[in-house]
Amino acid sequence: MVTTQLFSEEEKRGVYRAIYERRDVRAEFLPDPIPPEVLGRILDAAHHAPSVGFMQPWDFILIQDPAVRRSIYENFERANDQASSVYTGDQRDAYRRLKLAGILDAPVNLCITCDRERTTGHGLGRQTDPATSLYSTVCAVQNLWLAARAESLGVGWVSILDMEELKALLGIPAALTPVAYLCIGYVSEFRPKPDLEESGWERRQSLPALLHFDRWAGHDDQRAQALLRETVEGA
Amino acid sequence: MVTTQLFSEEEKRGVYRAIYERRDVRAEFLPDPIPPEVLGRILDAAHHAPSVGFMQPWDFILIQDPAVRRSIYENFERANDQASSVYTGDQRDAYRRLKLAGILDAPVNLCITCDRERTTGHGLGRQTDPATSLYSTVCAVQNLWLAARAESLGVGWVSILDMEELKALLGIPAALTPVAYLCIGYVSEFRPKPDLEESGWERRQSLPALLHFDRWAGHDDQRAQALLRETVEGA
Repeated sequence: MVTTQLFSEEEKRGVYRAIYERRDVRAEFLPDPIPPEVLGRILDAAHHAPSVGFMQPWDFILIQDPAVRRSIYENFERANDQASSVYTGDQRDAYRRLKLAGILDAPVNLCITCDRERTTGHGLGRQTDPATSLYSTVCAVQNLWLAARAESLGVGWVSILDMEELKALLGIPAALTPVAYLCIGYVSEFRPKPDLEESGWERRQSLPALLHFDRWAGHDDQRAQALLRETVEGA
Repeated sequence: MVTTQLFSEEEKRGVYRAIYERRDVRAEFLPDPIPPEVLGRILDAAHHAPSVGFMQPWDFILIQDPAVRRSIYENFERANDQASSVYTGDQRDAYRRLKLAGILDAPVNLCITCDRERTTGHGLGRQTDPATSLYSTVCAVQNLWLAARAESLGVGWVSILDMEELKALLGIPAALTPVAYLCIGYVSEFRPKPDLEESGWERRQSLPALLHFDRWAGHDDQRAQALLRETVEGA
């Protein structure tokens, strides 16, 4: 495989489209089945994520059984009720209007776990930062998310779950960490902006304010502008 | 922006190429400068990562000053000496032969931090799993890494650093977490396989062994084969 070849303009556009048009999908899932080879391609994309020391600490639990999804949905409902209780007044109403999971609507759910003790990679690179095994697993999630977008599949990441109960429901060994619980399926549409931006819950931050040069708080408006003058103000 | 349009075959190929041809680059960096607009595009790609509750907990410290890079390189050398001491015999020799960072060779270094207390997003989605703020930051890293590959830029993630010393060197506030320290630059080539695979340090794991159906240890060879029959056995 020649891996040093330049990307064509169209290939490059594909990468940026996946990045800018990826959404955290909750409300737009269709029940249409996902062809096995498409599901296989996005799983293989996840498996080709970078990992510290080539550790590959991930496992993939593919959940299609409606009974299993139903019990996870009940876990979500309890956790979400509890989560909403920290908000008050208008903000609580706004929270409750948000649809935050498509567990039952999406035909496929996927739990991606991290085995922080896996010996693959012989510990290389993680003595100084043990969180790197979790980080590797997140890279797998993001690879899958972008490949899914290219396949016109929506993905929604559900973090509002009692994680210990999730482990018990799926029989995940105690030592493992469930990093991501994902809902996957075709969608009626990809929204032009993130749901939480569209609904007014939060705004996109200004990138120049998050840019530092050479050290923390080394702000430089002119350099920031030179860097960002061609960026797609995507959504 | 119409975001629901299908990807062309070539756009889709771009996404998979970025995923399969991305490398953790250490040895192949060229000193060639990176045009500001290219650097801007990959930073904007990072900024468009998903984040829990639209929290956007990241900051980007772009390091080009050779003196700053030199002091971080010295931090790496000490941490790497210490890391090598856990190995013995042939494995220690193998470890010491590996080149694990391109801090001085790459023209640009980038530290991506996570502010776990940032109030953007009003805490949505992270009551049940506070690690999600770190996970969001890693999604930004992976977006940048894939956009960089499409731009023919190599990226190397250096985790072998004393993180407290790194924070002191860059003036990062105590409450923040440096998630990734990246070296970025053009490369002489992208290797066909990961360095750690090529050098025999570790092998790629078999994906079917990491696939579970409906619950942990729900293995099903036939289903796994149906899923994976069309996957690119990329490197």
